[in-house]
Amino acid sequence: MSITVGSAPLRIVVAPSGFKESLDAESVAEAITAGVRRVVPDAIVDSIPLVDGGEGSARTLAAATGGTVIPMTVTGPMGTPVDAHFAILGGPGPRRAVVEMAAAAGLRLVPRECRDPGRTTTRGVGELILAALDHGCRQILIGCGDSGTCDGGAGALQALGVRLTDREGRTIGPGGANLTEVHHIDVTGLDPRLAETSIVLACNQHNLLTGPAGVARVFGPQKGADAAQTERLAAAMDQWSSVLAEHCGRDLGSAPGSGASGGLGAGLAGVLGARLRPRFEVLLDHVDLDAALAGADLIITAEGAIDFQTPRGKVPAEVARRAKPYGKPVIALAGTIGRGARDNYAAGIDAFAGILAAPVELTEAIARAAELITDATERTLRLVLVGAAMHRAA
Amino acid sequence: MSITVGSAPLRIVVAPSGFKESLDAESVAEAITAGVRRVVPDAIVDSIPLVDGGEGSARTLAAATGGTVIPMTVTGPMGTPVDAHFAILGGPGPRRAVVEMAAAAGLRLVPRECRDPGRTTTRGVGELILAALDHGCRQILIGCGDSGTCDGGAGALQALGVRLTDREGRTIGPGGANLTEVHHIDVTGLDPRLAETSIVLACNQHNLLTGPAGVARVFGPQKGADAAQTERLAAAMDQWSSVLAEHCGRDLGSAPGSGASGGLGAGLAGVLGARLRPRFEVLLDHVDLDAALAGADLIITAEGAIDFQTPRGKVPAEVARRAKPYGKPVIALAGTIGRGARDNYAAGIDAFAGILAAPVELTEAIARAAELITDATERTLRLVLVGAAMHRAA
Repeated sequence: MSITVGSAPLRIVVAPSGFKESLDAESVAEAITAGVRRVVPDAIVDSIPLVDGGEGSARTLAAATGGTVIPMTVTGPMGTPVDAHFAILGGPGPRRAVVEMAAAAGLRLVPRECRDPGRTTTRGVGELILAALDHGCRQILIGCGDSGTCDGGAGALQALGVRLTDREGRTIGPGGANLTEVHHIDVTGLDPRLAETSIVLACNQHNLLTGPAGVARVFGPQKGADAAQTERLAAAMDQWSSVLAEHCGRDLGSAPGSGASGGLGAGLAGVLGARLRPRFEVLLDHVDLDAALAGADLIITAEGAIDFQTPRGKVPAEVARRAKPYGKPVIALAGTIGRGARDNYAAGIDAFAGILAAPVELTEAIARAAELITDATERTLRLVLVGAAMHRAA
Repeated sequence: MSITVGSAPLRIVVAPSGFKESLDAESVAEAITAGVRRVVPDAIVDSIPLVDGGEGSARTLAAATGGTVIPMTVTGPMGTPVDAHFAILGGPGPRRAVVEMAAAAGLRLVPRECRDPGRTTTRGVGELILAALDHGCRQILIGCGDSGTCDGGAGALQALGVRLTDREGRTIGPGGANLTEVHHIDVTGLDPRLAETSIVLACNQHNLLTGPAGVARVFGPQKGADAAQTERLAAAMDQWSSVLAEHCGRDLGSAPGSGASGGLGAGLAGVLGARLRPRFEVLLDHVDLDAALAGADLIITAEGAIDFQTPRGKVPAEVARRAKPYGKPVIALAGTIGRGARDNYAAGIDAFAGILAAPVELTEAIARAAELITDATERTLRLVLVGAAMHRAA
């Protein structure tokens, strides 16, 4: 079977996210492309794996730029060592590092039975930043997302030489819960290389440090906090926000992205002067997604789950938003179609399809994801071809 | 959103099978139609629920013709009473009955731990035939499919007054395994009304009584026989075939449909002169499917499972076969996409889609089938619309 638009072969942009706990974005893109080839062998496929700053972002950006992944052991979110990594991007210009916070402090690193966001620390993120400095990087991009912490970035700052003290001048312990006691930020021990370093956080701008939609209340429960813990944590973030304001002279509590990765955004912005930027503006800098979208006949994106959260800044919605000005059709494939998935039609995703073929356990679906994605892509494209043929027949 | 072909509204034929153990064909058609309405509210939907002779066939044909379902208790496949039913079709002309063999002797009526196709009996099918005669029907259509028996129709014949005896003239017991002993067919006690009655079996013509692809070897294992039982049952069918040949003067062992419903086809053909007809020729007599297909822009069919068996005479493949001469696109929805599903593309099904949205247990998928079908229909039609829009843009 073949389909052409006018006389030229079909141009398909394949721009998926990774599937969490299953496949990285490149593997998803490969699986989709294999499905495309089954149905439209002569299609021109433009494969653009995308990241959202969360799990897999450092590896994917390293691969996309011909850079390097540096493995290292850091302090994990529970305070014990974990295997982590950061990326040094390829390409010309000054050395740029990508630190994926989830690699050092991700929710995946916190065993389910130990989840208490009042205790977990971003210390390992600071250790990755130090390592990037050691490797000569003075531009550091920090990917937020999938965090297992809510310490306002305190742990990362402590690793970088910052001392946080209580009203009596005593150093406070790790974890967000202790921030109820924070009173002063002492930067005399801060690593001096940071003064000449540009740090940018790729944030979901909807995440705020404080207030009713603040990070403790929105993400605390999914990171393992009960109702009382959530409120204590929210109070700790309020205290942290006021101490940060006193330190840097501006109120970061409700700054867009201040709540990114359990408040890491606010901490690094307030103490290091890091910039909090909309994640896709930063993360898509290295690919000319817009040019690809403009030239496409069809765009296929994908994500592990498509649901009510997708329109709030997930990869498929971002792809749809960028395709919209060019009037190009966007299809999303999803491992799971969840609650509120139909909201995505209004977000510019023209159609979506699940990858599941038969009743199956989540673990099996995850293990067989690549094969399921390829098969689902074939089924999906054949449905598109039915529509195209109907119009030819008309 | 709306789609038109030329200037007329889209005409969609919805022609699904029932989903076994879940929804009857009418309910599936309703669920699909609801999904169509979400996407193309002004479509002209022609709803034609289809049956294959198996579970649900009697009720669906009664509903389609404005007929009646008569409930009654009969001897079940295990020899104990079961609630069964048959249908009297509506419409002009002589009274016609539909006896769905699965209602009296279906696999569903045999508890999984008791499955032994050498023991189960079609006696209840004979009892339904007697009841249809009592209701004045002299045209009886027997729907085969989903049987839990392999008795060559012996039980049904015994219920109708036939005596089957062994070499010593002793009456043989119920169940296919005893047919190894059958030697003679005595029809002196046969219900005299059968002489003036036309019996037609709606069969899958691929089902044969004997040989390597005979009913015992193909279906014995799924009805619960182990390897040794299967071979004994195959030998019993050979013996039954030779006794039938002696009785009626023709070899039925490899006649198309002779193996229908565990050999019910051969037994009723050999002793009652029943005709074994291709099931869709008979079952689709009451609906003008061809006229609907000819006028459609798109055909949506469905089945509980789509797999390698679908092209071998299941509803979606039959719909595709009949749509082919008119060049109309056929889409199939399936509860489960199984092994060999891609064979269906060659069988004329242009595209298919599963109904599952997320990892789920079979029982939950069955319980929520209607909702899942409606959502899947919406997703599927939106993909078709993407294809249609691509061509408008070209």
